[in-house]
Amino acid sequence: MKKQFINEIGIGEPVDDVFALSEKTLMRRKDGNPYINVTLSDKTGSIKGVVWDNVDRISASISSSEFVQARGNVTEYRNTPQIVLTDMTDCPVDSIDPSDFLPVTRRNIDSMFDRLLKLTASMETGYLRELLEAFWADTEFADQYKIAPAAVNMHHSYIGGMLEHSLSMALLAERISGHYGGIDRDLLIVGAILHDIGKIREFEYRYKIDYSDEGRLVNHIVIGLQMLDEKLLTVDNFPEECALLLKHLIVSHHGSREFGSPEPPKTIEAVLLNYIDEIDSKVNGIREFMAAESPDETWTSFHRMLGRHFYIGKKTGDVAD
Amino acid sequence: MKKQFINEIGIGEPVDDVFALSEKTLMRRKDGNPYINVTLSDKTGSIKGVVWDNVDRISASISSSEFVQARGNVTEYRNTPQIVLTDMTDCPVDSIDPSDFLPVTRRNIDSMFDRLLKLTASMETGYLRELLEAFWADTEFADQYKIAPAAVNMHHSYIGGMLEHSLSMALLAERISGHYGGIDRDLLIVGAILHDIGKIREFEYRYKIDYSDEGRLVNHIVIGLQMLDEKLLTVDNFPEECALLLKHLIVSHHGSREFGSPEPPKTIEAVLLNYIDEIDSKVNGIREFMAAESPDETWTSFHRMLGRHFYIGKKTGDVAD
Amino acid sequence: MKKQFINEIGIGEPVDDVFALSEKTLMRRKDGNPYINVTLSDKTGSIKGVVWDNVDRISASISSSEFVQARGNVTEYRNTPQIVLTDMTDCPVDSIDPSDFLPVTRRNIDSMFDRLLKLTASMETGYLRELLEAFWADTEFADQYKIAPAAVNMHHSYIGGMLEHSLSMALLAERISGHYGGIDRDLLIVGAILHDIGKIREFEYRYKIDYSDEGRLVNHIVIGLQMLDEKLLTVDNFPEECALLLKHLIVSHHGSREFGSPEPPKTIEAVLLNYIDEIDSKVNGIREFMAAESPDETWTSFHRMLGRHFYIGKKTGDVAD
Amino acid sequence: MKKQFINEIGIGEPVDDVFALSEKTLMRRKDGNPYINVTLSDKTGSIKGVVWDNVDRISASISSSEFVQARGNVTEYRNTPQIVLTDMTDCPVDSIDPSDFLPVTRRNIDSMFDRLLKLTASMETGYLRELLEAFWADTEFADQYKIAPAAVNMHHSYIGGMLEHSLSMALLAERISGHYGGIDRDLLIVGAILHDIGKIREFEYRYKIDYSDEGRLVNHIVIGLQMLDEKLLTVDNFPEECALLLKHLIVSHHGSREFGSPEPPKTIEAVLLNYIDEIDSKVNGIREFMAAESPDETWTSFHRMLGRHFYIGKKTGDVAD
Amino acid sequence: MKKQFINEIGIGEPVDDVFALSEKTLMRRKDGNPYINVTLSDKTGSIKGVVWDNVDRISASISSSEFVQARGNVTEYRNTPQIVLTDMTDCPVDSIDPSDFLPVTRRNIDSMFDRLLKLTASMETGYLRELLEAFWADTEFADQYKIAPAAVNMHHSYIGGMLEHSLSMALLAERISGHYGGIDRDLLIVGAILHDIGKIREFEYRYKIDYSDEGRLVNHIVIGLQMLDEKLLTVDNFPEECALLLKHLIVSHHGSREFGSPEPPKTIEAVLLNYIDEIDSKVNGIREFMAAESPDETWTSFHRMLGRHFYIGKKTGDVAD
Amino acid sequence: MKKQFINEIGIGEPVDDVFALSEKTLMRRKDGNPYINVTLSDKTGSIKGVVWDNVDRISASISSSEFVQARGNVTEYRNTPQIVLTDMTDCPVDSIDPSDFLPVTRRNIDSMFDRLLKLTASMETGYLRELLEAFWADTEFADQYKIAPAAVNMHHSYIGGMLEHSLSMALLAERISGHYGGIDRDLLIVGAILHDIGKIREFEYRYKIDYSDEGRLVNHIVIGLQMLDEKLLTVDNFPEECALLLKHLIVSHHGSREFGSPEPPKTIEAVLLNYIDEIDSKVNGIREFMAAESPDETWTSFHRMLGRHFYIGKKTGDVAD
Repeated sequence: MKKQFINEIGIGEPVDDVFALSEKTLMRRKDGNPYINVTLSDKTGSIKGVVWDNVDRISASISSSEFVQARGNVTEYRNTPQIVLTDMTDCPVDSIDPSDFLPVTRRNIDSMFDRLLKLTASMETGYLRELLEAFWADTEFADQYKIAPAAVNMHHSYIGGMLEHSLSMALLAERISGHYGGIDRDLLIVGAILHDIGKIREFEYRYKIDYSDEGRLVNHIVIGLQMLDEKLLTVDNFPEECALLLKHLIVSHHGSREFGSPEPPKTIEAVLLNYIDEIDSKVNGIREFMAAESPDETWTSFHRMLGRHFYIGKKTGDVAD
Repeated sequence: MKKQFINEIGIGEPVDDVFALSEKTLMRRKDGNPYINVTLSDKTGSIKGVVWDNVDRISASISSSEFVQARGNVTEYRNTPQIVLTDMTDCPVDSIDPSDFLPVTRRNIDSMFDRLLKLTASMETGYLRELLEAFWADTEFADQYKIAPAAVNMHHSYIGGMLEHSLSMALLAERISGHYGGIDRDLLIVGAILHDIGKIREFEYRYKIDYSDEGRLVNHIVIGLQMLDEKLLTVDNFPEECALLLKHLIVSHHGSREFGSPEPPKTIEAVLLNYIDEIDSKVNGIREFMAAESPDETWTSFHRMLGRHFYIGKKTGDVAD
Repeated sequence: MKKQFINEIGIGEPVDDVFALSEKTLMRRKDGNPYINVTLSDKTGSIKGVVWDNVDRISASISSSEFVQARGNVTEYRNTPQIVLTDMTDCPVDSIDPSDFLPVTRRNIDSMFDRLLKLTASMETGYLRELLEAFWADTEFADQYKIAPAAVNMHHSYIGGMLEHSLSMALLAERISGHYGGIDRDLLIVGAILHDIGKIREFEYRYKIDYSDEGRLVNHIVIGLQMLDEKLLTVDNFPEECALLLKHLIVSHHGSREFGSPEPPKTIEAVLLNYIDEIDSKVNGIREFMAAESPDETWTSFHRMLGRHFYIGKKTGDVAD
Repeated sequence: MKKQFINEIGIGEPVDDVFALSEKTLMRRKDGNPYINVTLSDKTGSIKGVVWDNVDRISASISSSEFVQARGNVTEYRNTPQIVLTDMTDCPVDSIDPSDFLPVTRRNIDSMFDRLLKLTASMETGYLRELLEAFWADTEFADQYKIAPAAVNMHHSYIGGMLEHSLSMALLAERISGHYGGIDRDLLIVGAILHDIGKIREFEYRYKIDYSDEGRLVNHIVIGLQMLDEKLLTVDNFPEECALLLKHLIVSHHGSREFGSPEPPKTIEAVLLNYIDEIDSKVNGIREFMAAESPDETWTSFHRMLGRHFYIGKKTGDVAD
Repeated sequence: MKKQFINEIGIGEPVDDVFALSEKTLMRRKDGNPYINVTLSDKTGSIKGVVWDNVDRISASISSSEFVQARGNVTEYRNTPQIVLTDMTDCPVDSIDPSDFLPVTRRNIDSMFDRLLKLTASMETGYLRELLEAFWADTEFADQYKIAPAAVNMHHSYIGGMLEHSLSMALLAERISGHYGGIDRDLLIVGAILHDIGKIREFEYRYKIDYSDEGRLVNHIVIGLQMLDEKLLTVDNFPEECALLLKHLIVSHHGSREFGSPEPPKTIEAVLLNYIDEIDSKVNGIREFMAAESPDETWTSFHRMLGRHFYIGKKTGDVAD
Repeated sequence: MKKQFINEIGIGEPVDDVFALSEKTLMRRKDGNPYINVTLSDKTGSIKGVVWDNVDRISASISSSEFVQARGNVTEYRNTPQIVLTDMTDCPVDSIDPSDFLPVTRRNIDSMFDRLLKLTASMETGYLRELLEAFWADTEFADQYKIAPAAVNMHHSYIGGMLEHSLSMALLAERISGHYGGIDRDLLIVGAILHDIGKIREFEYRYKIDYSDEGRLVNHIVIGLQMLDEKLLTVDNFPEECALLLKHLIVSHHGSREFGSPEPPKTIEAVLLNYIDEIDSKVNGIREFMAAESPDETWTSFHRMLGRHFYIGKKTGDVAD
């Protein structure tokens, strides 16, 4: 567990902790002697560093490192902090705590998962409840379900993001199915809970969030369907039509071919799931985008993906009657 | 008030009631004598009719009629019913009850409007409540609000459709703003209630639903903004920022320029209102489309606008646990 | 096996064979007596028929029939042939030979399949050859592979169409991989052979070609991947990377999300497979479209899907030097 | 009124004038003493500056300044001019002359406005003339009409740009309505004059050109319609149909929903107004873009918005016969 | 020259004139005897006809006719006129006057062409004037230029349409180049006059307006460039740059690749020519579309290509002040 | 012929060779004395240089140079090599060997051209063979055909690229026409060989690859058609229909208007040529893109134009059975 985070290190302080080694360049001084420029980073930011002594030994020991134990002192160079490093040694990936290097949901993962289990228990359709229970009983799956991110960027792009997103959608699904009569509540909720499970394998998120080979080559919709197919085999007498409708929810949850769904929504539940996904990802994504602005701005900067500035300004609702 | 509706008239029955005169053609028999072929209609369907006698007098009296008082007897011709008409006289448009000729919401208009008034009373933001009260106090407006359709076709295309659609959206807005923290519930609900008021003038719906000149030339978004501007003048000290945010909800509720909104949604409330509008119009539109299919079909016919067939089939939720 | 086909039945001939019952209407004569109008069809066309006698008995016996054994004589009515039917009895779907009612490839199915087996034997990559052999050893699969159509319309929309299309693509893949160095020939050929196997379940083609529920709800790409996943489990030590690359060929063979592929082609083989699919379906589709024109036309009628007329005219190549 | 403009200040000269304070950073020397780096700008460009002495006092006095009175001497640093500042004091926004900081039309604003008044007087349709006169009699409106820009960039993006653009369009409208018979010349000219009035409030242009909150939330088309509605109330007996047609010109002048018009042009005059707007904004925009290139270029750089290079080169018309 | 036009032929009149033979079907009466049903047409409409006698001889003589000399008498059948034909003989295409069968411009072709010659004489750029003179001196070209249509439908789709359209554009170009300074007036006018010359070969318009093989295979832009290239060879010392700019006007006059221009407009003149073409084709097309409506309609029917109804109604300009 | 290439020059070496003068800036030292910063480049890269002495003379002698003879010594400045230049003199463009400054195909140009001649000789359609022979007999054309690039970037963007691309397409065309019966092989091959000849004039490629004025104003499709028209005049009795079909191949080879073809492919040969062009440019472009990545990457960087990363990784085909 890291103790020193980059955004808290002051000039003049000694440093001795684990960092990701983002960049490393071997340089040469005018007198011909070598030195090393590096960039170290963790989830709070990055900092430059320089190695003046023992260059050959240090260079060799971190030649293929992704993480290093770094020792030295923080100085100031051209008005920004810089670590003068006295030593760096390799730090195996296995020994890393991802939460030191990856952003994490601000909500409590276990509480959220408990809420999911309660929703599961509330299912009146037996075989749907059994299906979810089969997923939760698969502890390897459940552990990954709790930490997978929902995206590389844009929305819920942090550890626990997929759980947070799926739970929020499931609760929203419950509210909306209560508004309209004749919605298959249980099917819709299961759809919300399982729609993104393919992201467990679409992304890599041990110490940075990125696409996996499988994610780029076959897409989380396809992976999720495969995971569902495997689990369906373990539930006795799961009705064939319901299995098709559930797969359809996963297949169509992006809303149109243009956005990556092989088929568009063709049931009321699928139409709703697509909108619920849209709402939850947009609300989260726009709020994260607003939160990244400095506090006195009335408008965000330009959101390239959504093609507009968003209005932050003085909320009407705050004004008393 | 009509008593005879076309879908209930049996062969052999006498007819004496008001009908819309959809088509009229003066024909000539082989012997050179004239006769009249007509098509009569009401909200339940249409029927062919023929006038053999007094052709000149009847033809003159209904020369520019949109509605006629028709008398005669139902016979059968080529396996379909046909009225042999003994007389037709003009029936002024003013005397027509639109609900005889227009489809009407299946829900109770007064109950729905009462629900809106209760929502209005629940507003904690005083000036927003006052704004709604100003609208309801304008009885001419309120009367039209109750009967306007929400569309010419596709969804809620019937008398009372805009009220039904707006109320449903307001209640859904309440549910969704309860799910997410930090939403301006009252603003969102007012947006849902007022977003389509321009349709009061965009459409004509006295005895058929069609676009008005104003509707085609300036669009319901623009008309609605003008109606809102006029009403805002009557509320003391309505905060300027809130007025802008409310107008923004109307301006942006179609979601993008491509769909007719001069600006896309730029606040969380505007983003939500657009999705709530999408959800409610799609749920209603798809269900009406499904309902028009014969009961033993598993799939609807092809929905041209949405580019797909919809699945009706044996609902999963019906199956007991 | 039918002996009388509609396009060959002459006026005055007796009729006694199986037909699809496309339409059936109970009519009533002026004297009040009922009669039945029907439309009968097979793969060569359709013909009108009428039942004057034994109306109640016949009507009852075919009340839910899709196929009937029809007996009667061909007469002429308003310049077109019509069968005056003396009897019709139900004909169970199971007893029908689809090739009487469905268009069939003009090429020999068994010869084409033999060619596929030879291609299979030519594979140098052992696990790819074993995978294909596992598919062919699954006789239920192989039987369906031989008869599935490749589409409902547009191209190869006939019994045996998927086999014809896949074989043509595989042979084209062999030619093109010979032109460029460094292509994984075996992988590309297996991709060509398996890319459309999901169509075996996407379509229904017992007596008419249409989408199945599964086809409309989850799409042939998804179905095909599931079939591949099941079969991969039966091949020992199938390399994981190759499995991913093969799935990627199926996932991306439509070329872009807009056309239903969850991911676009990201390997040279996937890029080629998409073009090979495009070429083979367009060459077949355009030629079928040209063949349907009357022989003296220089241009086809307007091809709505492709947005143009095609030029048939006097081929340059025919002109001697 | 500024006397020293940045593009004319020479190395070695003293400086004492008003500048916009574009950037300000508090820095620290190696000896720990603070200094201030600033960027100063006016409509002719920007220049770096540095404060070595009295850093605390100066920093406090300009802590929230947008404009400053700056005193110092121009030196050279790394081959570019830099002001060594001896003092800076806050300069209230109210005291600023926008034309010192904003680009201004190269044409004479009063002459252009006189031309508009003559066009107004030439109107034969009384109520249209009265409407324009009502606008001009509103001196607050008229003053803003004279200085508003037509855009933030792309075309006529300078003080007086909207007037220049609208007048040019009105004169072009006169020419085109003279070419075709049956055009309502007066309506078309009024449409040209009023089509962009919403930009008076859509933009802020006191000392920089940017969007206002209202502009971003409701768009200049909507604002312009509101301004027109208010003014129409002041003209007696303005025909209702003409009011609709005039609003339609404003509503539809962007030509399609995709470009922000809630309705596309549906009258000949509206179709023409859209093209006249297109022509005038493109001719101005492309010429400004060409003018920004160095004089010996044959082609402009790539115009991102219009997706092409434009040809400047040796004009054919220059060549004598 | 035809004397009897279909819209003027009354019941009971004898007929003896040339008609296009649009349809011909050999029928058989209940007694087995043959008769012929035909549809005859000219530019004013079409009429049904029937041949009862001499069926074999007549049938043979018109077996491949496109035009016939028809003789008979007009009767009435099922309330519509029908010609009972006593004879029909083939009428060679060469003997046909196209203006009997094709719609023709309502303006005088020779007057329009004279106006073009005056414009030509007004050119101050010698080599551009010489180029036009070279075109007009080519009498075969000039004769076709006078009669070619500008389109198969949509706008100016009649004999003389291209001349009418090109002249109108040239005069509009003169007005617009007078409005803006610095436009190469002569180049723009020559562009307007020559931009569509490829349509002379793109269409066939001897007795119906349709695409030629060349038109469908290579497009009028390409054909027009080839015609220009040939003519440029005949003008001495035509400057190379001007030739390129003139070709660019033809290449780019559709405005974008999407509309068939290989390159978009890259000079001010090309930008203007595209808008002038747009204006003139839209004004003509919309007016023709409005003119086809019955006189009491306020709105046109839906214009499929342009995606809207157009407003015809009571023109503002008609109302007195 | 250059001997010193930038990527091979070591620190400390003397330099005396020809370089492109990419950038030149006159600077001033603190003591007021001028010096010159330059960037020199050739096909292997670029290097900075500085002139300290004889600044005025050298500056004058290279004032408008594109290429210079440069003399000096390589030193190191801020860890990168820099030439301290003792002299630079102008080097006329005519004396430059483009292959020193432009990338060149890795294949042998003469061998490729020989292969084309063999293909030409294999034509059975006499007039097509004669047409090609007429092109090859035009030595100015043939010389340019051998060296023209196929693009400015994306694919085959090097000297000899068009020849390499056209030959590859012709050979692919031969393979594909052998797969399908009924293709006009000779026509398709001639189309492949000539489809891009307009690029000979569309680009400038003496010492850098860029668009020519003609290329930007009229496009290579139009230029190629003009070149074909000229050459067709030299072949006796070339059939008119074949000429049209050949022009159609050039006109339509981009596949759709959106991609710059005035008409889409309307013959089987044109459909195939478009796909063959797509395949060959994509295979070459993607492989070049992959080759530019560092050897240990599994994925390429993001390909902006094609909107994806490409998979390079461990090829399945490499794995032994």
